[in-house]
Amino acid sequence: MSEELPEGDSSVRRTPPTVAVVDAQAPGNVGTIARAMKNFGFEDLLLVDPPELDPDGEAYGFAGHAREDILPNATEVSFDHLAENYHTIGCTAVTNEDDRSHVRYPFSTPAELADRLPTVEAPTALVFGRERVGLTNEELARIDEICSIPASADYPVLNLGQAATITLYELQSVTLTDDETQLPDLERTRAAEPTLDRMYDQWADLLEEINHPEEKRDKTMRMLRRVYGRADLTEGEANTLLGLLRRATERPADQ
Amino acid sequence: MSEELPEGDSSVRRTPPTVAVVDAQAPGNVGTIARAMKNFGFEDLLLVDPPELDPDGEAYGFAGHAREDILPNATEVSFDHLAENYHTIGCTAVTNEDDRSHVRYPFSTPAELADRLPTVEAPTALVFGRERVGLTNEELARIDEICSIPASADYPVLNLGQAATITLYELQSVTLTDDETQLPDLERTRAAEPTLDRMYDQWADLLEEINHPEEKRDKTMRMLRRVYGRADLTEGEANTLLGLLRRATERPADQ
Repeated sequence: MSEELPEGDSSVRRTPPTVAVVDAQAPGNVGTIARAMKNFGFEDLLLVDPPELDPDGEAYGFAGHAREDILPNATEVSFDHLAENYHTIGCTAVTNEDDRSHVRYPFSTPAELADRLPTVEAPTALVFGRERVGLTNEELARIDEICSIPASADYPVLNLGQAATITLYELQSVTLTDDETQLPDLERTRAAEPTLDRMYDQWADLLEEINHPEEKRDKTMRMLRRVYGRADLTEGEANTLLGLLRRATERPADQ
Repeated sequence: MSEELPEGDSSVRRTPPTVAVVDAQAPGNVGTIARAMKNFGFEDLLLVDPPELDPDGEAYGFAGHAREDILPNATEVSFDHLAENYHTIGCTAVTNEDDRSHVRYPFSTPAELADRLPTVEAPTALVFGRERVGLTNEELARIDEICSIPASADYPVLNLGQAATITLYELQSVTLTDDETQLPDLERTRAAEPTLDRMYDQWADLLEEINHPEEKRDKTMRMLRRVYGRADLTEGEANTLLGLLRRATERPADQ
């Protein structure tokens, strides 16, 4: 039985996961999280027991353009509301080692979540805990799944704002299509082969012109191909080099 | 011609890339970057025209455990020193669209850098610019390659500390082996097939015991396999379920 995906399905906008912050102490961290949400295409911010968010204070100061929408539109809710209405994903630096305890195990990394979340159609909330202690065991026990950011065993505890930034960065594949990032579609435009061939031919002419020893020319040409091959020359770069080499080859001998 | 990699080669420690911050205004951002360095296995911090880093101020307050080593060991250098002594990689949110200008093009994403950097043996510096304007065109022109973090076209400009955090997170594959993260080697331990088979057999017994209609049993068993299959049961989970199902099957009929 073969099923075809409906055309244009990949362009269907899914609701981005909600972001929830539980009992944050520092308004600056809430602002940092709001900014990362805006940077990576998230919209809906829920706050459980938030600090006061003074429009002239650090939350708004750290929020960048998110001060205009995400932060003022944030909703205060209870932890019960989160647990009862969302597929909750709790983020923690500290996991259990194996399934003797389920509070913090099994876990997914943010990169693994990015692969899997697009297939989940339920309202989903990414839940970040308070500074220092994160989410408590009691909170994690009520949460549906666990996410943990790999970091140095020497010091794996990330700042709240930084942990949320990394998680939202990884999950932008859920919220943004490639067309919706600021980057041009192509990070580089590789030169066409005929352009490259003309440049290599010009190099060969130049080697002859400067009397490069004949027995070394093949080896030198191979080296040049390796150098430019690794650099992934663009069309513009290859043409500029071709022009320079031509002028070097054709310049009149020293007078 | 076949070449074998020397055994144990993957465990050779490379020098982690140096991190350089140019003309940061906010001490807190320097602290945030130092903390991310320690979280992801970086050690060497260079500062060009830094703000004052008061041990009782925000730089140290935001640095976490990096206040003990990375921050006090940071070295003040000139931009010339950077450009002359390192393979420099400059981070910017704003790229050119194509190769009509080379100041901000071609670029790599942090994920692409993570793939490629391990093959570069030169001293390398990741260079982050000042808040608001980042690295200037004059600075970028002297830098060897460009890195840009994909983000929402609506608001691609990340906070300095957040941009550095994401870049260092992506590059931890250069500085840390999997053994050196805090996460256990296995994120989950999948139950052995014989354990799963015993659990499914027990489900089949239970379906019989509760008089589940015979014509529906195959379909129901398929559904159960799909449910548990997606959940990637651990050995402990499968055994617990097996025990529960056995007790449900064998319990005395209502008296």
